[in-house]
Amino acid sequence: MIAQINYLTNIRLGPGAISEIDEILKGLGVGKSLIVTDRGLTSSGMIESIMAAMKGEKAIYDGTPANPTEDAVEEAVAVYRQHRCDGIVAIGGGSSIDLAKAVALMVTHEAPLRQYAAIYGGVGKIHKMVPLVAVPTTAGTGSEVGRACLISLRDGRKLGFLSPHMLPDVAVCDPELTRSLPPMLTAATGMDAIAHCVETYLSPKINPPADAIALDGLRRASRHLVRAVTDGNDMEARQEMMIAALEGALAFQKGLGGVHSMSHALGGVERLKLHHGTLNAVLLPTVLRFNEGYCGDKYDHLKAAMGLSPDADLAAEFERLNQTLGMPENLRAMGVTPDLLQDMAQYSQEDHSTATNPRPATAADFHEMLSQAMG
Amino acid sequence: MIAQINYLTNIRLGPGAISEIDEILKGLGVGKSLIVTDRGLTSSGMIESIMAAMKGEKAIYDGTPANPTEDAVEEAVAVYRQHRCDGIVAIGGGSSIDLAKAVALMVTHEAPLRQYAAIYGGVGKIHKMVPLVAVPTTAGTGSEVGRACLISLRDGRKLGFLSPHMLPDVAVCDPELTRSLPPMLTAATGMDAIAHCVETYLSPKINPPADAIALDGLRRASRHLVRAVTDGNDMEARQEMMIAALEGALAFQKGLGGVHSMSHALGGVERLKLHHGTLNAVLLPTVLRFNEGYCGDKYDHLKAAMGLSPDADLAAEFERLNQTLGMPENLRAMGVTPDLLQDMAQYSQEDHSTATNPRPATAADFHEMLSQAMG
Repeated sequence: MIAQINYLTNIRLGPGAISEIDEILKGLGVGKSLIVTDRGLTSSGMIESIMAAMKGEKAIYDGTPANPTEDAVEEAVAVYRQHRCDGIVAIGGGSSIDLAKAVALMVTHEAPLRQYAAIYGGVGKIHKMVPLVAVPTTAGTGSEVGRACLISLRDGRKLGFLSPHMLPDVAVCDPELTRSLPPMLTAATGMDAIAHCVETYLSPKINPPADAIALDGLRRASRHLVRAVTDGNDMEARQEMMIAALEGALAFQKGLGGVHSMSHALGGVERLKLHHGTLNAVLLPTVLRFNEGYCGDKYDHLKAAMGLSPDADLAAEFERLNQTLGMPENLRAMGVTPDLLQDMAQYSQEDHSTATNPRPATAADFHEMLSQAMG
Repeated sequence: MIAQINYLTNIRLGPGAISEIDEILKGLGVGKSLIVTDRGLTSSGMIESIMAAMKGEKAIYDGTPANPTEDAVEEAVAVYRQHRCDGIVAIGGGSSIDLAKAVALMVTHEAPLRQYAAIYGGVGKIHKMVPLVAVPTTAGTGSEVGRACLISLRDGRKLGFLSPHMLPDVAVCDPELTRSLPPMLTAATGMDAIAHCVETYLSPKINPPADAIALDGLRRASRHLVRAVTDGNDMEARQEMMIAALEGALAFQKGLGGVHSMSHALGGVERLKLHHGTLNAVLLPTVLRFNEGYCGDKYDHLKAAMGLSPDADLAAEFERLNQTLGMPENLRAMGVTPDLLQDMAQYSQEDHSTATNPRPATAADFHEMLSQAMG
């Protein structure tokens, strides 16, 4: 098997890294930035303090919805054009960073957005975009070092956009910016990082550096997530979680697995507005039980990375961790109803992550897993 | 401390990866390739079999010297122009790949070469070059995933050239191509990979993914180098060494240390023609003794990666490994004479790797280390 391995990222990491934002923008030749963020962050005052560090001109769009939409992309593009910006700074969680990627795309490419979706061959149509700096304020999605964004179109579909040109020019990973993230979000986004590390490590694709990075991310997250949730001011734990998040995302070019297949499907149920990281946390034990015996000695390496004894039950350990973190007990507790399962199983099977689940999974397998995860 | 982390690489890895060369060149839009290699490889027949897999037109330059020179760059550039090539395939060890990088530079940039050296601010002057594919036939230098090359100029200086544009577009890492590498070269290049992993892991710069990759490379190399040397047809060992070599080079953006400072200095003594990997092997134990106590708990992690007990003596373990591999016992056995040490100590102190040695090292420190390594 011939492996395909890529790394292409520029990261500034560490407490206070945000102080370099002005120098970074100058280095990229940005004269006037559009800040893409959400209202939670503008009202918290965090954006104000970051803007103070940016000496150049700037405009702001803070209408990022929980799941970024085509409408929001167009609104932000209008602000960008009105203020004649020449670069973008995304500040926030995965939603703001994903939205900013789509904005960078649409200020440099012909409308409509739809044609650039991966399923319409968008990878080949996406060329160089305007400079984009990503400043995560959560430690989880890793969108700041990723080449993709997920946007809900007006026709109701949630489509993936993918291109090396979508990779932020610089990711500024400053754990100080996660200090005020509430415990519940710290836990849910942290479990997202853990799910990335675990699932991509188990992907059958061959990529030794990615495997090494994924195990290191898991090692850090399993030792520091509870600490970061318990005491948000524990900056060592915050820094370690930020590293785990970016390591998870650096590694997941290997592909993910069944956890993400189901999480993507359930995340598309608009009325439930389920949190991606929380879904991953709840689904992880079920998928680990399904995959057991199909992963060579990889469960042993996962356990070693987590500091567990070789005879520990990996799925049970994650159940225990979920409990400690106050994650929902099961899908039912999150509001998922049994009538959804048939469709969800089908969508999960069709998800792009299914191809790299270590054990082949049919729609019937997903139905069984979803039923188990219902509790 | 704010970390700077970069990854930018495209690798095809695995036995038979070379079979993809034609598709790779087409993907890069190369119609006519210049193959840059050395006479050892053309006379072995290896180049012929690789050329058979390349369906497009090609020309060949096989005059790569053991240490690439400005003259060789100009000769190869002449062949490139004469045959109107539009892309380069480097096949060989670090010398052929380094030479090919300089050729790619000089067919796209104004002469003279000298002005692009890192010490003359070349980084800012180097723009996009022609497509370059690197095909390593040794497992050690990692030049195939590196952004630098080292060229001896006509004025006698050996200068480093550095640019993200110098990174090969694709590295084809096919362990089959290392099958016929003789035991001594397998050992020496393998020790180069090990030295990269160890030194960059010990560098005080913060780069968690690089550290994870470096430890993984050391883990693989320490388990497979003796096997690859003992039985060159052990393809599992060959593959693991190829992975260790590329991991070492992916990681060493963190900088190296005193081993490389002295190795660069001694490698510049023209009349001795010392092998870089062999020098690294011989110098490693001395530098590990010098740095002990200045690396936090990193020696423990190195020992764990190598499967050694926590109370093992790391320097002594590498001495034992050198002995098993048949490396020279000391610098004296390599032909280094005491009269050189004063200059070598000074050059070592001035080397760019000295800045990232975990323990600050003066010229006097280097003199002391060199004296010890003389045996």
